[in-house]
Amino acid sequence: MIKLFQYNWMVRDEWFERCKQVPIEELLRNRMGGTGSILYTLFHILDVEYSWIRGIQGEPDIQFQYENYKTLEQVKQLSDSWNKETKSFLDNWSDDLDSEKITVSWMEGHYAKGEIVRHLIAHEIHHMGQLSIWAREIGIQPVSANVIDRGLFK
Amino acid sequence: MIKLFQYNWMVRDEWFERCKQVPIEELLRNRMGGTGSILYTLFHILDVEYSWIRGIQGEPDIQFQYENYKTLEQVKQLSDSWNKETKSFLDNWSDDLDSEKITVSWMEGHYAKGEIVRHLIAHEIHHMGQLSIWAREIGIQPVSANVIDRGLFK
Repeated sequence: MIKLFQYNWMVRDEWFERCKQVPIEELLRNRMGGTGSILYTLFHILDVEYSWIRGIQGEPDIQFQYENYKTLEQVKQLSDSWNKETKSFLDNWSDDLDSEKITVSWMEGHYAKGEIVRHLIAHEIHHMGQLSIWAREIGIQPVSANVIDRGLFK
Repeated sequence: MIKLFQYNWMVRDEWFERCKQVPIEELLRNRMGGTGSILYTLFHILDVEYSWIRGIQGEPDIQFQYENYKTLEQVKQLSDSWNKETKSFLDNWSDDLDSEKITVSWMEGHYAKGEIVRHLIAHEIHHMGQLSIWAREIGIQPVSANVIDRGLFK
């Protein structure tokens, strides 16, 4: 499972790099579908990952307001700072945790930890697919979505 | 790993169902980014999955021409018919296979089997993310990308 998180983080960092060439007004511009903008997509991916990774560990949710992170650099800094906590949790992941159930404050019901980690993997890839369409619309080449050829299995 | 394939197949079938309400000319229409159209995206996902699942088993690649599958029903039939072979392979998947290397006819280099199955998972989710943008453009609600609440961990 960790390999797909590693993949997501590589792709995410490449998108941060790629977006440096995009004017901030294009990153903020309202677009059809998805979360509505390129920058908010990046923020939303982080926010959802961090909330669930805290939730899975029984930590209370922390609310972060997008209004306070309206530059690419600020969103990238959030990504870097939260990543350490997420990595440290996933480094200790084992398949025995798959079926353990938890509850979180922002949703009803019980969720298996294995369900949540897979949800996070798919959530990020899904939104990156959306970015790839918007990238073409503004004339930049999307980041490759390939898992192969990234050196993840060397 | 199998859970994320099961997720992908559920989402894929929901897209086939959702696309029934879309006129064929909209499914075939050239669009910006991605594979260029909704129907070709669905065909491409199947084609890539089947090629790699055959390749991973040492079976020769079979060429399928998109020109022969230009209706939603035909692409759905392909999906159903190939799915049995893919499921049967994945039912016998074990993590021991992760690091086994293979070669395929259409690419240079050696690929780990674990790299390929993860590539297929991410490949489909990525393209479904693209469909979700195009769906909004033509006024239909995208299929949910949630892994949670699908009963995969009951």
